[in-house]
Amino acid sequence: MKLPTAPYKGARDFYPEDKRRQDYMFGVLRRVVKSYGYEEYDAPILEALDLYKAKSGQEIVSEQTYSFVDRGGREVAIRPEMTPTVSRMVAAKRQELAYPLRWFSIPNLWRYERPQRGRLREHWQLNVDIFGVANTNAELELIFVADDIFQSFHATREMYQIKINHRQLTDYILSDYLQLTHEQGYALIKLIDRKSKMEPFRFIEQLDAILTPEQKQNSLSEKLLDVLDAKDIQGLPKELLNCPPALELSAMIQSLVAHGLTNVIFDPTIMRGFDYYSGIVFEVFDTHPDNNRSMMGGGRYDGLVGMFGVDPVPTAGFGLGDATLANFIELHNLMPKLANETVLYIAVLLDEIEAGLAIARRFRQAGINCAIDVSGRKLGDQLKTAQKKQINNVLIIGPDEIKANKYTLKNMDSSKEVKLTLDQVVLKLTK
Amino acid sequence: MKLPTAPYKGARDFYPEDKRRQDYMFGVLRRVVKSYGYEEYDAPILEALDLYKAKSGQEIVSEQTYSFVDRGGREVAIRPEMTPTVSRMVAAKRQELAYPLRWFSIPNLWRYERPQRGRLREHWQLNVDIFGVANTNAELELIFVADDIFQSFHATREMYQIKINHRQLTDYILSDYLQLTHEQGYALIKLIDRKSKMEPFRFIEQLDAILTPEQKQNSLSEKLLDVLDAKDIQGLPKELLNCPPALELSAMIQSLVAHGLTNVIFDPTIMRGFDYYSGIVFEVFDTHPDNNRSMMGGGRYDGLVGMFGVDPVPTAGFGLGDATLANFIELHNLMPKLANETVLYIAVLLDEIEAGLAIARRFRQAGINCAIDVSGRKLGDQLKTAQKKQINNVLIIGPDEIKANKYTLKNMDSSKEVKLTLDQVVLKLTK
Repeated sequence: MKLPTAPYKGARDFYPEDKRRQDYMFGVLRRVVKSYGYEEYDAPILEALDLYKAKSGQEIVSEQTYSFVDRGGREVAIRPEMTPTVSRMVAAKRQELAYPLRWFSIPNLWRYERPQRGRLREHWQLNVDIFGVANTNAELELIFVADDIFQSFHATREMYQIKINHRQLTDYILSDYLQLTHEQGYALIKLIDRKSKMEPFRFIEQLDAILTPEQKQNSLSEKLLDVLDAKDIQGLPKELLNCPPALELSAMIQSLVAHGLTNVIFDPTIMRGFDYYSGIVFEVFDTHPDNNRSMMGGGRYDGLVGMFGVDPVPTAGFGLGDATLANFIELHNLMPKLANETVLYIAVLLDEIEAGLAIARRFRQAGINCAIDVSGRKLGDQLKTAQKKQINNVLIIGPDEIKANKYTLKNMDSSKEVKLTLDQVVLKLTK
Repeated sequence: MKLPTAPYKGARDFYPEDKRRQDYMFGVLRRVVKSYGYEEYDAPILEALDLYKAKSGQEIVSEQTYSFVDRGGREVAIRPEMTPTVSRMVAAKRQELAYPLRWFSIPNLWRYERPQRGRLREHWQLNVDIFGVANTNAELELIFVADDIFQSFHATREMYQIKINHRQLTDYILSDYLQLTHEQGYALIKLIDRKSKMEPFRFIEQLDAILTPEQKQNSLSEKLLDVLDAKDIQGLPKELLNCPPALELSAMIQSLVAHGLTNVIFDPTIMRGFDYYSGIVFEVFDTHPDNNRSMMGGGRYDGLVGMFGVDPVPTAGFGLGDATLANFIELHNLMPKLANETVLYIAVLLDEIEAGLAIARRFRQAGINCAIDVSGRKLGDQLKTAQKKQINNVLIIGPDEIKANKYTLKNMDSSKEVKLTLDQVVLKLTK
C-alpha cells in the first residue's frame, strides 16, 4: 500500500519556511494586542454543536460546520468560529472575572467550504474582544488596535480601508424608515451582506422578491438603494441624520479621523454575517485591485454571554483571518526576509563527533542555536547541507583544529573563511 | 434556552492564567529544541484516517481515534499523534529537503479515552524528530535534548529517570533466544508494554496464555522473566550480551553517562506502544512516588517515510505531552510565578478619556504594555479592577494631573504613590 502525501483538502502543511512566516505574522499580532493589555486564552477545538445553533446563522451551522456524533453519542463540532467559545468561557466565570476584560486568541478554525484564494477550510483567526464596556470606547479601541496591526506590518493607510456601520442604524432604516416586517428585514440584512459579491441587477431582482407589490409601488427599492449608496453619514436621507445610531457613528468617525485614521469611511452595506451583532460593526478592506476584499471584521455583540444563563455582559470584538492577512502582506510586498533561526552549522567527521558534541554544547550555553551534522558524510556534503538550509555560518571541526584549538568558520554567503578559537567564534556570533 | 458553560469532556479551557503557564512551558521547549537547530513545522489537525491504519497499532485506530466521514465522503480523523503526519510531509518533499533534517512541532492531539490524571482526550505534544541519520548519534542527541528540557525546567536528575531499550534486542530475545513465532512475539511485545501497569500474577497469567504447553515445559516463562528483571545490560543472560543491539545499547548508555546523564538506565520492558519503532527506544519517568509514570518516549522508526512510496529515510524522534509535563513541574514545585504581561493600568474618568488614549499610545510606543480603563466607572472601582488583574502599576489621570503634567503612579503591591511626569513614568517602567 502506498499512502498519499497531500494534506487534507483545503488545509495547509506548514514546512519550516512557511511556519517562519506564520510565526512572524502571529508575533506581530501578539505584540500589538498585548501592548493594549489584551491577555491570551485558548479552548478546545471541539465544542458541543448546540453552541453554534443559536446565533451563528443558519448557513454556517447546517452547511459549513464539521460536525459529527462522538463515541459517547454527543453532537460535536470542530469550531467554525471563536466567538461562541469565548462567550461560554466568560459566562462560566461571570462573577470572578475583572471587567473590562481584554482577551485575545489565535484559534484554528474549520469550515466546510469550496477552497479558494484566501478562503480555506482550515484557517487561524486572531480574535480580540473586550467585555464589560457598554460605551463606544470599546469599539473605538478595537478599531485603533486593528489599525495598529496593519501599521505594525508597515502598511500605509492607502493600502487598506476601514468601513464602519451600525446594526441599529440598519434596523432603524428597515423598520422605521422603510417600515418592513421583521422577516423582510432579516432577509434584507442577509441580502445586503452579500451585495458586494453580486451583480447589481441580481441584487435588485432579489430585493424585489422580498418586497410586496404595494411596497414596490411605494418605491421602497429606490429608497433603499439611495440609502445604500450613501458615501458618508451626510449622504443619508435627512430623516435618518438625527437618529441615535447615526449620531453615534458620526461621532466615532470624527474621533477616529482626529487620531489619524484617515482611511475610515461609513458604509451602510457592512452587515457582518453573524446574527449576534447588535451595534457598531466594521470591516477592513484591502484596497489592492487584485484583492479588493474584506480582511477582518467585528463589532458589538451584547447578547451572547447572556445566552448561557447569566446576566449579559456588553461585548465588542473582531476577528482577523491568517490567510487573508498573508495575501495582503504578500501582495503589498510587506513580508520581510526571515532568516533560519539556526545560526551555526557544525561540520564534523564521524571520528570527531564526541568533540563536536562538547563544542556544540558550549555554543548553546552561550545562547547560540547550533546544529551539528552527525551524518558522518564527507565535509563537502555537509557544507552543501548548510547552504541548502540557509544557515550562514559553518564551523569545521577536524583533528588538526582540535589539536590547535583554531577552527575554520566559514561564511556561506561570502565564502570567506577565518581561523578562530572557540571563544572568538562565540564573540563573533553573539555580537 | 440556556447553553451549558463547561468545555467538551476531557478537554480544557485555558483562561489567561492557564495560558501563561502553557506559554512558559512551550517557551522553554521551543528555546531548548531551537538551540539544537530544530525547526518548527505544523500541519492540519484533520488527516485521512488511512494514515493511522497502517502502523499506529490496532487499539488506537479502532477505539481511540476521533474519526468521521466528511461531507465529501472522505474518512477523516482528528490526529491522535503527529508521527504519521511528519512522515507524510517528509515523504512529500523527499528529494528537496536537506538532511539531516531536524524538525519539531507542538501539535494539538485527540484521543477518545476515559479522562484521568495526566491523560486527557485533548493534549499538546512536543514532537522532535531527526531524519536522515542512520547511526545512533541521532538517538544520542534526542536523549540529550530530552535531558536538556528537564534541566531547563530546573529539575535535578533525581527527579526523573531515562529508561532505554532496543527493539532489535527484544526481537532477538523473542525470536532467537526464546524461539517464539512471529505472532507470539507480537503478542508479547504488547503484553510487556503493559507490564508496569499490571499486577505481576496477571502478567504471568497472560504470558502463559501466549505460550504453548511445550514452551511452558521448557521454562520459557522463567527465562523471559529473568530477562525482563535485568537491571543493566550486564544483568542479561550471557547468550545475549554480545548480540549487536546489546552492544549498541551498552555503548550508548556509556556515552550518555560520560556526558553527565547519570540517570540513564537499561530497562528491557520499555516497548513503546506504536508498531513502527525499529531500533533504540527510550522513555523518561517521573521518580516522584505520586506520579511514577512515563512522561515522554521515543526511538528509531526507520520505516514510516517509505510507506508513502518514496525511498525510506532513517528516522528517530520523541514525543512529550503537555499534561504529564505540567504534572511533573507542579509536583516538583518548578513552576515560577508568572506575572501579568500588562505592566500598566490607566485609571481615568470618562471626561478625560481622549487625553488618556493619547497617553496610552505614548507608553505603547515606548514598549510598555498598558490597558486603559474605558468603563467610565469611579476611580476606586478601576483600582480594584487593576488589583484583581494583578497589574502592579496604576497611573491615575484626572483634570488636575493633565494641567500640571504630573501624574499619580500607584504601586498596588506596596500601595505607595509617586507624582511623576509622563517621561519619568516611562523611564521608571522600562528600566
